[in-house]
Amino acid sequence: MTTQPPWVYLDNNATTRMSTWVAEAMLPFFSDNFANPSSSHPLGAAASQALQVARAQVCTLLGAALEKEVVFTSGGSESNCTAILSALETQPDRDEIVTSVVEHPSILAACARLERSGRARVHRIPVDCNGNLDLDAYRSALGARTALATIQWANNETGVIFPVKILAAMAHQAGALFHSDAVQAAGKIPIDVQWVGVDMVTASAHKMHGPKGIGALYVRNGVKFEPLIPGGRQERGRRAGTENCAAIAGFGIAAELAGRAIPHETPRIERMRDRLEGEILRLVPGSMVVGGESDRLPNTLNMAFKDVEADVVLLLLEQARIAASSGSACSSGSMEPSHVLRAMKVPFSHLRGAIRFSFSRENVEKDVDRVLHVMSQIVEKLEAHSLSMEPAYE
Amino acid sequence: MTTQPPWVYLDNNATTRMSTWVAEAMLPFFSDNFANPSSSHPLGAAASQALQVARAQVCTLLGAALEKEVVFTSGGSESNCTAILSALETQPDRDEIVTSVVEHPSILAACARLERSGRARVHRIPVDCNGNLDLDAYRSALGARTALATIQWANNETGVIFPVKILAAMAHQAGALFHSDAVQAAGKIPIDVQWVGVDMVTASAHKMHGPKGIGALYVRNGVKFEPLIPGGRQERGRRAGTENCAAIAGFGIAAELAGRAIPHETPRIERMRDRLEGEILRLVPGSMVVGGESDRLPNTLNMAFKDVEADVVLLLLEQARIAASSGSACSSGSMEPSHVLRAMKVPFSHLRGAIRFSFSRENVEKDVDRVLHVMSQIVEKLEAHSLSMEPAYE
Repeated sequence: MTTQPPWVYLDNNATTRMSTWVAEAMLPFFSDNFANPSSSHPLGAAASQALQVARAQVCTLLGAALEKEVVFTSGGSESNCTAILSALETQPDRDEIVTSVVEHPSILAACARLERSGRARVHRIPVDCNGNLDLDAYRSALGARTALATIQWANNETGVIFPVKILAAMAHQAGALFHSDAVQAAGKIPIDVQWVGVDMVTASAHKMHGPKGIGALYVRNGVKFEPLIPGGRQERGRRAGTENCAAIAGFGIAAELAGRAIPHETPRIERMRDRLEGEILRLVPGSMVVGGESDRLPNTLNMAFKDVEADVVLLLLEQARIAASSGSACSSGSMEPSHVLRAMKVPFSHLRGAIRFSFSRENVEKDVDRVLHVMSQIVEKLEAHSLSMEPAYE
Repeated sequence: MTTQPPWVYLDNNATTRMSTWVAEAMLPFFSDNFANPSSSHPLGAAASQALQVARAQVCTLLGAALEKEVVFTSGGSESNCTAILSALETQPDRDEIVTSVVEHPSILAACARLERSGRARVHRIPVDCNGNLDLDAYRSALGARTALATIQWANNETGVIFPVKILAAMAHQAGALFHSDAVQAAGKIPIDVQWVGVDMVTASAHKMHGPKGIGALYVRNGVKFEPLIPGGRQERGRRAGTENCAAIAGFGIAAELAGRAIPHETPRIERMRDRLEGEILRLVPGSMVVGGESDRLPNTLNMAFKDVEADVVLLLLEQARIAASSGSACSSGSMEPSHVLRAMKVPFSHLRGAIRFSFSRENVEKDVDRVLHVMSQIVEKLEAHSLSMEPAYE
């Protein structure tokens, strides 16, 4: 029996391994410091103090001015849903939402529901084949009835980064609020909510080596707010429910570690990504990088292969213990080609052949070696079965 | 320097210490089995399997018929809010809610907001001085416009148990859905959602030695449902967001441990509670048990002292390293007397003097000894300062 090599994990846009430091930060809140932070006894106060520390850490990562601008939620989907509903409920004279066709399902689903129930009109702005937003269409859609423009900071499938500073300014000119889903950006590239001038921003811990089930919604001081989950006085009345101290403490540490790592890890990750990208392009004729001509997250590579089913390639990668994904985890298992790739008009020949490799600071150059080695075997195998992968001798 | 005794923790209705077994069940999902359960690679599948196991465990605790009836949420407040909004959105011809005046703040706040926005009319049914619901008022409030009756399984402050089987039947006679917030009941007393005939039930892990930040909403098969947080296909499209595997696995174990413990721990806990209750009544003249004449959770004791500020007693208890609470943690720090105690018409002389002692299976008889010893000192101290506590020589 041969020992199997460890997994090469290149699905970090789906979720990341929790850092050991994060786990260590969480453990004390399980059985020692377990009290309800809203309890008035000293046990509660100890838990409450941990929330303060974590709030400061997340505040710093996002470049927020005030700690109280950070509202802890159960994750990105909740934060996104909250931002949209809050913008509508606090501005009764505005009932339109401007968003993009390539947003995360949590944004698109919340918008679709509001539209269905007649509570809002939704403008979905298209992107070009590089994944860049149609700025003219965006500007035209904004108006006196726009309650919120919500455009992601960076796309989860392609890594394409959006010009949020410009988009925020344009929304503000129309008197609308601007929200950005920064789940994929926060912790990977520098975020400065003040410089960008956003009103609300979504972040999630588990995309930056923090725990699952915890996220944040940045709400700029002065922005009117209506909670999604009302009740107790937790989070200054902005999000009810016993605070998830352990996860919040973990998020805090994850945010601090991510912030510290960005300056040196981002270039290193980008070099690995670029090497993988260049080599696969060379290795696989007919392959293309989705969003390759745009400003992208340094960790994300979306490769589309010609006349190949991504699932076949993923399966072969899996057999070699390499984890990547087609599209997002939220829709994986679905037979539909990704809404993002369709919106970017990826050629039909490539639409079912897209694979996302997403790096984290845990990846090393050897991972790229492994993927390249396996990819060359896959190309041979598929060519031999003339299953796919444009033949090299064509 | 003398060693301080360990804390006696009698605030288990606020939150419980996480069981060691629960922590152990969670740890593998932090760094080994950390993948996104929605990911299609084998790493995701391993995480996904854990969700299945946990869902079965929670299903069993609640006595649900089908595992798919269990929807994992971020906790009790989210489950409660979801149940109310879902009932309204899935029944457009019904726009009234029937609830009680002693519900958890998450129910009351969700109702108040719907009322404010004109989306629903809310009937709040009063309770008598024993905390029992006015059944005639409840019946009269139900009608063809009732979308949902939502009455808690047991009250968090007093432990008073509600006749949910009868209440559910009455709601169904009016064609309405019935939901119960069983956050304080689940794991403490047997729950059988099928026998009771409820449509939706809320449960929370951290009240049964599980992790914070995870809860469940039982939704009976066939009940129409609209998610609070839409988006990805997680939880069969009923709750978007990357599943919090670690917490869900922890919830599963906590549910199983709680279910197994109920038969032998419930009587033991009840005996401790009853001893504390009897001895305090004997020790402190003028003291009364709030809800004492009602069917109550075996772990909960709400003692109201005459002409005493609960905060003073709590502080003295704290100095002796005993944690209890006044009212609920959700509103602690607030100067308002509890809405539950006001609704129960606790005499004005006792209204600010209520202290909740809530036990768990971690408590032992020695804890009761400690509390009784300290309480007798407190009585002496307060009498000496004629601060309060009706004098024994009166």
